[in-house]
Amino acid sequence: MDKDLLLKQFKEYQNRMAAFRFAMFQIRWDASTIAPSKSAAYRNKMMGVLVGDNMAQQRDPKNLDMLEKVSQMEDIDPLDKISAEKFLKAIRKFEKVPREEMVARQQNTAMATRVWEEAKKKNDFAMFAPYLAKNIEHNKKSAEYRGYEGHPYNTLLDDYEEGMTIERYDAFFGLLKEELVPFAKKVHTEGRPIDDSDLYKFYPKAKQREFLDYLAGAVRYDLDRGLISESAHPFTSGASLNDVRVTARYLENYLPASIFLGLHEMGHAMHSQQGDPAHEGKNLGGAGMGIGESQSRFYENYIGRSRAFWQRHFYKLQNIFPEQLKNHDPDSFYRMANRSKPGLIRLDADELTYPSHIMVRYELEREIMSGDVDVNKLPTMWNDKIEEYLGVRPTTDTEGILQDTHWSGGSFGYFPTYALGTAYGAQFYYALLKDIDVEREIANDRMEVINAWLQEKIHRHGGLLTPDELMIGATGSSFDPKNYVRFLIEKYTEIYF
Amino acid sequence: MDKDLLLKQFKEYQNRMAAFRFAMFQIRWDASTIAPSKSAAYRNKMMGVLVGDNMAQQRDPKNLDMLEKVSQMEDIDPLDKISAEKFLKAIRKFEKVPREEMVARQQNTAMATRVWEEAKKKNDFAMFAPYLAKNIEHNKKSAEYRGYEGHPYNTLLDDYEEGMTIERYDAFFGLLKEELVPFAKKVHTEGRPIDDSDLYKFYPKAKQREFLDYLAGAVRYDLDRGLISESAHPFTSGASLNDVRVTARYLENYLPASIFLGLHEMGHAMHSQQGDPAHEGKNLGGAGMGIGESQSRFYENYIGRSRAFWQRHFYKLQNIFPEQLKNHDPDSFYRMANRSKPGLIRLDADELTYPSHIMVRYELEREIMSGDVDVNKLPTMWNDKIEEYLGVRPTTDTEGILQDTHWSGGSFGYFPTYALGTAYGAQFYYALLKDIDVEREIANDRMEVINAWLQEKIHRHGGLLTPDELMIGATGSSFDPKNYVRFLIEKYTEIYF
Repeated sequence: MDKDLLLKQFKEYQNRMAAFRFAMFQIRWDASTIAPSKSAAYRNKMMGVLVGDNMAQQRDPKNLDMLEKVSQMEDIDPLDKISAEKFLKAIRKFEKVPREEMVARQQNTAMATRVWEEAKKKNDFAMFAPYLAKNIEHNKKSAEYRGYEGHPYNTLLDDYEEGMTIERYDAFFGLLKEELVPFAKKVHTEGRPIDDSDLYKFYPKAKQREFLDYLAGAVRYDLDRGLISESAHPFTSGASLNDVRVTARYLENYLPASIFLGLHEMGHAMHSQQGDPAHEGKNLGGAGMGIGESQSRFYENYIGRSRAFWQRHFYKLQNIFPEQLKNHDPDSFYRMANRSKPGLIRLDADELTYPSHIMVRYELEREIMSGDVDVNKLPTMWNDKIEEYLGVRPTTDTEGILQDTHWSGGSFGYFPTYALGTAYGAQFYYALLKDIDVEREIANDRMEVINAWLQEKIHRHGGLLTPDELMIGATGSSFDPKNYVRFLIEKYTEIYF
Repeated sequence: MDKDLLLKQFKEYQNRMAAFRFAMFQIRWDASTIAPSKSAAYRNKMMGVLVGDNMAQQRDPKNLDMLEKVSQMEDIDPLDKISAEKFLKAIRKFEKVPREEMVARQQNTAMATRVWEEAKKKNDFAMFAPYLAKNIEHNKKSAEYRGYEGHPYNTLLDDYEEGMTIERYDAFFGLLKEELVPFAKKVHTEGRPIDDSDLYKFYPKAKQREFLDYLAGAVRYDLDRGLISESAHPFTSGASLNDVRVTARYLENYLPASIFLGLHEMGHAMHSQQGDPAHEGKNLGGAGMGIGESQSRFYENYIGRSRAFWQRHFYKLQNIFPEQLKNHDPDSFYRMANRSKPGLIRLDADELTYPSHIMVRYELEREIMSGDVDVNKLPTMWNDKIEEYLGVRPTTDTEGILQDTHWSGGSFGYFPTYALGTAYGAQFYYALLKDIDVEREIANDRMEVINAWLQEKIHRHGGLLTPDELMIGATGSSFDPKNYVRFLIEKYTEIYF
C-alpha cells in the first residue's frame, strides 16, 4: 500500500480514537458532576456500546497492520511515528491477557466499587472482602499473563509510573521511614502548638467559590479554557488544551478543603493547559501518574502552602471572610494552613503526615502481591501500620481500610505514585530555585514566570519523555528523595521549633 | 442470511445509532450550558469526526440492505419493524440530494449562524443578507431534488409536522387573521388596563431558581430523572426517559421569564419522561414539532397560565418574594401574568399576540418559497406585516427580522409549528375537560391525574402515530383551529371585559 494512503488511514484512525476519548470525557464529566441520579443505567448501556466499538477498532487486524507500518516509517512527522507506537504499545500491553479474563475483571471491579460504597457506609469490611479478594486475584493473574521482571508487583508499578520498581520504591519509602516518620513524631510531641480553630468556623460555600475564582487568577488557570465545577471527589478532566476542567468540594465548616484541593486540581489543569498544541488528539498521553501528581502537588504545596503565597493573597481571603479571619495576618494564616496533626484519613492529611498514609498502602500492596495474604486479616494489618507510623489507630474500617476507592476499582500500584509525585515536586522546586527567586515572584504576583519554567521543563513535553528523562532534563539529576525529606524538615522546623 | 443473524446485526446497528445520539446529546448539552468559551474549535472537529463516521454507517450499502430486509420481516417485534422503517425513511429522505449539495448547505448554515449572531448585535441586516439568500437557495434546491406535491414549501412543512401543507396552514392562519387579530386589537384598545409593573421589580436569581424547583414538584417533573440548568436560550434535551433536562433563563427584573419559559420546557420534559420505556433507543422519534410544542404549551399556557394554577401556587410564590408581591393575591397575579400587549419580540409575546408573530413568519416563508423574493426587501416586508397584525413597527432589524435564529440555521417550515402546536393544545384541553374537572384537580394539587391523561392519550405513543392519528385518538376529531380561537376569546374576554 502506498505511503500517502497509509498515512491517510492513520489520520482517520487517530481522529476516530480522539473523538471516542472526547465523547467519553463528556459523558464521564457529566456523570461525575450533574447527571440525574436515575440516568446511570441507560448511560452505562450506551458507554458499553461505545467502548465495545472502540475495542473492536483497536483489535481490528487491518488497523494493527496499518499502525505497525506507520510506526516503522522513517520520513514522517516524528509525532505521528510516536503516536503509532503509543497506540500499538497500549494495545499490546494486555494482548496476552485472555479476553474472558479482561471481561471478568471489568465485571468484578464494577461490582466491587458498588459494594465498596455500601461497605464503607455500613463499616462492614466482610461484605467487601470477597470482591477485594477477586480484584487481587485478577491483578496477580494479569501480572502472570503479561510477565514481569523480578516481582509481579513491578509490572503494576510500571503501569502507573514507567521505570518504577519495588527496589526503587523500597529505597524511597525506606528513607521516609528512617527520617521523616521520627521527625513528624517530634513535631507532634515537642513542637509549639498551633491553634487552627478559626479554620473550622462557618465559611459559606458561595464565598469559598468566590475565592476559588480569585485563586484561578492567582495561578493563571485560564477560565476561558477551563471551568470550576463541583463534585463529591475533586478531579481534573480535559478534552483539549482549550478545555481543561476541575471540580471542587466545599466544606462549610472547614475552609482549607476547597482552597488546597482546589489548588491541587488547578495544578493538574495547568499541566494540561500548558501542554504543546501539536500533541493534541495524537494519543501521546502523559509522562505518568507520578509526574502528573508532582504538578498538582507543586501548585498545592510548594506554591499554595508557602509563606510567600499567603503574604500575597491572605488579605484577599480576609476581605471575603472578614469576620471569620479577623484575628489573623499572613503569617498566622500560613501557620494554621500548615498545622500538622496525625490523623486517620489520607485525604485530610497535612503535608508532613501524608507520605505515611501512602507508605502503609504501599507496604500492604507489596505483601499482597508477594504471596498469600489472608484478605480477612488486611484490616488489622492496616490498623497496625497506621498506628506504627502515625501513632493513631482506626476504630472502624470506614476510617481504616475502606476509606479509599482505589482497591475496589482494581488499582494496585497506583497509591505509591501519590507520594512519589509529591517528592518529585520537591526536586523540581529546588531546581526552580536555582533559576528564579520563587518567593519574590510569588509575592509580586508574577506566577507567569514560574508557569513558564514549568511549561518549558515539564508541561510542554507531554508524554514524549519518560519520568526519568523528564527529571534529569528539568533538574540535572535522577530522582533523589533526599530533596523531599530536606524540604519538609526545613519547612516544619521553621514552623514548629 | 438467516433471520437470527440479521436481527443481531440490526440490534447492533440500533445500539450504535443510539450510542451516537447519546454522545451527541452529552456534547451539545455541555456546549449549550457550561463549556469554556475557547473549547469550540476542538469540539467542532471531534463532532465532525463522530458525525462523519455515523453518516458512513448509515450509508453503508450492507446496512441499508440489512434494514431493508428487517423492515420486511413479518413475525418480529413490531417495534423493531417500525424502527427499521424509520431508519430507512430518514436515510432516504435526502437520498436524492447530492452529497456536495448537502455539504455546501451545512457549511453555509454553520457560517450563517455565526454571521447572524454578529449581525443581530450590530443591527446590520446587510451583512447577513447574502447568507440568508444562500440558505433560501439551498432550501429551494432541496425541495426540487426531493420532489414535492403542489408546492415546494409543502415538502419543508411536512418535514416538521407530517401531513401539513400550505392549504392546511392557510386555513389555520386565515381563521386567526379573521377572528383573533381583530379581537386582540379590541383587547388592547378597549380592555380594562392591567398594571403589571410589580413583575418588573428586582427578583434575585437564586430565589427564582428556588421557585422553579417548587414548580417542578407542582407539575411532577421528576428531578431524579431530570435537571434544571441555565442557558441563554432555554431548551429541553433528553437521552432517555430517565434523563430529560431543561434549561432556564433568569431575568432579575422580569419575573415571568423564568416561570413560564420554565413551565414550557418542563412540558417538553414531561412529554419525554412519560414516554414508553419500550421505545427507548429504537429511533422511533416523536410525533412531530407541532405535537411536541402542543405539550410544552400545554404546561405553559393551559395549565401554567390558568387561574386555578395560581389559586394553588401563588402563595408559595409570595412566600419567596414577600416584598415584591405584597400587594397581590392569586387573582391579581393571574391577571398580571396574562396581561396582553402588542410587542416586537416573539419570545416575549403573551398568549394572545403570540400567533400573530408566527403568522408574519409563515407568510414570509410562503412568499420566499413561492418565487423570487428580493432578500434585501425582507426587512421592510417583515416590518410591514408586524405593523399590520400587531399595530407596532420595529425601528431596528435586531428587533425585527434578525431576532430569531431559525433562518440562519437554514430552517424554513419550522416556525408555523409553534402556532399550530399551541392551537393543538387548546383542542387537547377541551378534550381533557370532558374527562376531568381540570380546575379542581389543579387547585387540589393533583397534577398526576392530568399527567396520566396526557400520558395515555399522547405521551406514550411517542413517534408511532402521525399528528392526525394522535389528534383523532385523543380528541375524537381532526385538528380544528376553532378550539384555539374559542379558548383565547373566552379567556381574554373574562380577563379584559
